[in-house]
Amino acid sequence: MKQTPEERLRLVTRNTAEIITREELNQLLKTKERPVIYLGVSITGRPHVGYFVWATKVADFLKAGFKVKILLADVHGAMDNCPWEVLEKRFEYYNIVIKGMLKSAGADLTQLEIIKGSSFQLEKNYVLDLLKFSTQTTVHDALKAASEVVKMGDNPKVSGLIYPMLQALDEQYLDVDIQFGGTDQRKIMVFARENLPILGYRPRIELMLPLIPGLTQTGKMSSSEPNSKIDLLETTTDIKTKLNKAYCPEKQIEGNGVMALCQFVIMPKKEDEKKTLIIKRPEKFGGDASYSTYAELEKAFVSGALHPMDLKTAVASEIDQLVAPIRKDFEGKEKLIQQAYPTK
Amino acid sequence: MKQTPEERLRLVTRNTAEIITREELNQLLKTKERPVIYLGVSITGRPHVGYFVWATKVADFLKAGFKVKILLADVHGAMDNCPWEVLEKRFEYYNIVIKGMLKSAGADLTQLEIIKGSSFQLEKNYVLDLLKFSTQTTVHDALKAASEVVKMGDNPKVSGLIYPMLQALDEQYLDVDIQFGGTDQRKIMVFARENLPILGYRPRIELMLPLIPGLTQTGKMSSSEPNSKIDLLETTTDIKTKLNKAYCPEKQIEGNGVMALCQFVIMPKKEDEKKTLIIKRPEKFGGDASYSTYAELEKAFVSGALHPMDLKTAVASEIDQLVAPIRKDFEGKEKLIQQAYPTK
Repeated sequence: MKQTPEERLRLVTRNTAEIITREELNQLLKTKERPVIYLGVSITGRPHVGYFVWATKVADFLKAGFKVKILLADVHGAMDNCPWEVLEKRFEYYNIVIKGMLKSAGADLTQLEIIKGSSFQLEKNYVLDLLKFSTQTTVHDALKAASEVVKMGDNPKVSGLIYPMLQALDEQYLDVDIQFGGTDQRKIMVFARENLPILGYRPRIELMLPLIPGLTQTGKMSSSEPNSKIDLLETTTDIKTKLNKAYCPEKQIEGNGVMALCQFVIMPKKEDEKKTLIIKRPEKFGGDASYSTYAELEKAFVSGALHPMDLKTAVASEIDQLVAPIRKDFEGKEKLIQQAYPTK
Repeated sequence: MKQTPEERLRLVTRNTAEIITREELNQLLKTKERPVIYLGVSITGRPHVGYFVWATKVADFLKAGFKVKILLADVHGAMDNCPWEVLEKRFEYYNIVIKGMLKSAGADLTQLEIIKGSSFQLEKNYVLDLLKFSTQTTVHDALKAASEVVKMGDNPKVSGLIYPMLQALDEQYLDVDIQFGGTDQRKIMVFARENLPILGYRPRIELMLPLIPGLTQTGKMSSSEPNSKIDLLETTTDIKTKLNKAYCPEKQIEGNGVMALCQFVIMPKKEDEKKTLIIKRPEKFGGDASYSTYAELEKAFVSGALHPMDLKTAVASEIDQLVAPIRKDFEGKEKLIQQAYPTK
């Protein structure tokens, strides 16, 4: 790689919420030419625009010379009684979507590997380690580790206790240096760090991304809330409509999903490509504006110089450009879409 | 088989504590020539004379024309961090011991199968079923099911919750009609019956044997209490010594481990072989006595006509005859014994 160590560190750490530990990361970047990082993705709901947050980070890691492994967790889907044939189709669907997202985010996919959970999570050594793991893990600790990731309710299932052990073993069996995920993964990541050494394996670096707000006022962008998210196969018209309706209060950053998309998806790419976000406006509203960094954009928005309506129009156009190639990849694949996500 | 259905039912049900359900067992005996029954044995501690209680029942099942599968649970041992090489040796040790016990109990071993847990419990389909199972099992129910079998303490481990699911799946994967074990297995057996149908499998018949008292006054015969048990490789002299010291209060059956050995091990065989238990006594104490059924023996003991000291002498001799062939099988196998149960 021709990047300086500083540039590499900047790419890896930008827009992250927490790194455990930063010292270990610095050391890794100094000593390993091509570190390996992984993200586990449960292949359940249909991927939406919010997935571009991690896809943008994957692009960062690839740009920084990392090998990136994306684990598509089909075994987890099977555990929730999703039939294998549907999981196979979802795996195919995700495979296309992820590559499309990463290309849109400006990544070179040579060092990307997409791995199916069932390709190693049902192997003997893995299972034996899982069973051994269960003898060193108290119900209390497993419940705590899973609490923000697995829906537990008042009467938790044993699967919820197995989940954090699987995720810890994945770090070892995928042979990675770093795991990354949202800040909701913090407890499960700390659990992995604490427990792998007891099994005789080294603890991994854990890198967390912030969770971004959805487009409605209800919290994070979620597959299960149709109005909070934009599907990756949404039409240009629907993208415009959803952004028009989006929660984007004037001068306010907190809870603003539109500004979050700018911060974590749109502007990092603009910055890398040395392009600007152009806001088209009639002369009477101040004429066209352009921003080359998120900092500039945020300053303008908070000051009121940039109005939500104008921002929404620009973001709709940017999102549309990001998903257009993915829509194109799925042309003629209506059957796959229907098999992966059957409509009743 | 030349037995009448009544004789078959008598052999299968004698000396059992509970059968869930007896109707299903009757139906099975009517419809299946060679039913399959299994017992799971954790290959941890060294087998002792108490194991003759289930060995005698295994002999009953074999005499009744059953196929008997004995599961030697090495995976469970590995879960408790017992190294594989030791487990392999323990498997070898148990293999010799079990066959010896069954021969001493008068069984024909043609229809006996000894199965290693790791030969199927780490296979993909089994593991996938285990993971699915975990999504339908609450922590609460698994804790309850395991409570009398797994040592839990105040801070239970996740392994204790996995344990009852493994045991339920074993019924399916060993393809048996009946599971049998001690009454301490009741909750775990009921758990299996309740849960296999949710996974799409049929519930099995559960047959329970009473737990017998140890030779000391502390409760059941246990591997972890050296004085409560007689090892299967114990010398004639040591057997005599331990029986002499055994808790065997005059006229009392409750908590009397010596009488329990008569009831569940010695007398069933005598009855089947139409032999009698002979008590050698000087003329001044009433001369020799002999009993052809446990009922007769118990009557004499409770009435005081049979004194504990005379009973102990006779039982010591009977036990010595039962284990003598096993001791012989291990002649020249000191290395195996040391490898299976290393002395520090």
